[in-house]
Amino acid sequence: MRIVLDAMGSDTHPEPELRAAIEAFERWNDPIILTGQELLLNAKLSSMNINPDAVRVIHAPEVLGMKDKPAQSARGKAQSSMAIGIQMLKDGRADAFVSAGNTGGVMANALFRLGRIRGLKRPALATVFPVRGGHAIIIDLGANADCRPINLLQFAILGSEYAKLIFQVQNPRVALISIGEEAGKGNKLVSDTFPDMQGLGLNFIGNIEPKELFAGAADVAVMDGFTGNILVKTTEAAARFLFEIIRTEIKSTAITSLGGLLARPAFDRIRVRLDPAQYGAAPLLGVKGLVFVGHGRSNSNALVNAIRVARDAVKGNLLEALVISLKNQLSLTDIMEEVN
Amino acid sequence: MRIVLDAMGSDTHPEPELRAAIEAFERWNDPIILTGQELLLNAKLSSMNINPDAVRVIHAPEVLGMKDKPAQSARGKAQSSMAIGIQMLKDGRADAFVSAGNTGGVMANALFRLGRIRGLKRPALATVFPVRGGHAIIIDLGANADCRPINLLQFAILGSEYAKLIFQVQNPRVALISIGEEAGKGNKLVSDTFPDMQGLGLNFIGNIEPKELFAGAADVAVMDGFTGNILVKTTEAAARFLFEIIRTEIKSTAITSLGGLLARPAFDRIRVRLDPAQYGAAPLLGVKGLVFVGHGRSNSNALVNAIRVARDAVKGNLLEALVISLKNQLSLTDIMEEVN
Repeated sequence: MRIVLDAMGSDTHPEPELRAAIEAFERWNDPIILTGQELLLNAKLSSMNINPDAVRVIHAPEVLGMKDKPAQSARGKAQSSMAIGIQMLKDGRADAFVSAGNTGGVMANALFRLGRIRGLKRPALATVFPVRGGHAIIIDLGANADCRPINLLQFAILGSEYAKLIFQVQNPRVALISIGEEAGKGNKLVSDTFPDMQGLGLNFIGNIEPKELFAGAADVAVMDGFTGNILVKTTEAAARFLFEIIRTEIKSTAITSLGGLLARPAFDRIRVRLDPAQYGAAPLLGVKGLVFVGHGRSNSNALVNAIRVARDAVKGNLLEALVISLKNQLSLTDIMEEVN
Repeated sequence: MRIVLDAMGSDTHPEPELRAAIEAFERWNDPIILTGQELLLNAKLSSMNINPDAVRVIHAPEVLGMKDKPAQSARGKAQSSMAIGIQMLKDGRADAFVSAGNTGGVMANALFRLGRIRGLKRPALATVFPVRGGHAIIIDLGANADCRPINLLQFAILGSEYAKLIFQVQNPRVALISIGEEAGKGNKLVSDTFPDMQGLGLNFIGNIEPKELFAGAADVAVMDGFTGNILVKTTEAAARFLFEIIRTEIKSTAITSLGGLLARPAFDRIRVRLDPAQYGAAPLLGVKGLVFVGHGRSNSNALVNAIRVARDAVKGNLLEALVISLKNQLSLTDIMEEVN
């Protein structure tokens, strides 16, 4: 299997990428294709004394930074590690692409070089989110700040296929995130989308509030990208804030400090359980290729998990499943769009 | 001071309301006006052996439940404890109204009976939210699921005045919640609102993400009611989920259980520190009267705190401050609306 890893993606590139490539090779015995500055990468590789079979370096002279404007990055920096890696998917020289770089840059390059699946209005980023008893998929995570009902309907289809693959469930429970569970409740976007969701042929369970999301009520939670981004970032920020308060309060007396010391293994287990690194990266669903975007702060562990998820997507024919599922629903969503 | 408390509001009414009224009288020596079913309330009061000076019961034969449609509740149930209580504000027979009942019902009654401050498009619910080193105001909490820029601009004015009152700061830091801190980032609503926010004469510090909100970067965080509701409910749900995981992991071994036992006072302090009861109730800012809405699950402690905040608002002439502040900004926001 041919997985391309953007070697210039993460905030501290290329070390996490190189370590991830080596570990991935040890695990799955498929060399990782690294795109990036050849001289730099080869120097690092030889200083790390790495098995030359583990990686294949494809030279990309340019680097797309966090400051680069996404819109200009695809055409303007055609020799970036992202552009060259994604172009390899397009040319059939690779099966999936993983980057921890500028999300907007990955999206722009993917849209420009791969294009969208026929009939799909807008690709979406999906993420896996810890909930009681397991995980849920949040879609969209921020690729589309403003949405129309047709977008949410299509996100529901994309998210449902992705849930089948990664949760191995037949009929994922799909919900709209809203404020109030009744059909009429929510903002205009949600209440306009609700009736058409019922006609999609998915296992649509209705609106849910954040409380039900965390309770594990749905496998796929559908929302516009602004809401999805706020929801996920609020969760991360709230968790960090809580742990900070817990640490301060525990350290404030000798007895509770001792308690904290004894309870430490429990907190270590929680850290592992909630570590975003275990979910690896967010797929950009709906472009004609398997593209995964990781957090800029990804460490090698997160990147190995991203490679694992990318491998699962290749093995499970995710792209084909998305194409078929969208095609089957297209007549429906087209009619809906006429109405909306 | 004449504070009206809706005796039929909370999920377990009227006990929390009666206990709150007694405690408020003991604290501030002003009798609380209770609206509700006289026979029921008098029976409870005599069974509780209460000082008859502590409360004044105003008979309201109807009760507005959680199932009542807000839109119909104002006209259709004119004899509800909410309707009668809010009418007392209108008639100058009370200074502030507090209810832990149906939020939509309170809003509908307040709009119908009191009306909006001149020039204000939409009133908003504001809440006080724990952040590092203190608190921030979230506005709107869900009164307006769909907003235009003019609404957010006016929420910023309302929120800033409320922050002056409750945080006792001269020049509250006002921010727009968004996904990305740069001026252009966010959804259409946020990016359309941003430039006009800069011209309002408030201490506008720009866009912030949830991370900065929790870090205490702003005193007032402005957003549409859908986003505000999702943000606050996600925080509550994430915190509950985390504490659940912590409990489970701590109890999973004997050593960590002992640690948890010793650390317990720290967790008790955290519970107090994060208890929403301490903020009491959310003001409905922008109607011509001081109206506060508490959570349906409010206990007597939360209601006493709501009464305290209502008293502060009366003493601080909040309504007058809002009227003046809106009036001073009206020429500005009117011009802006023409443009938008």
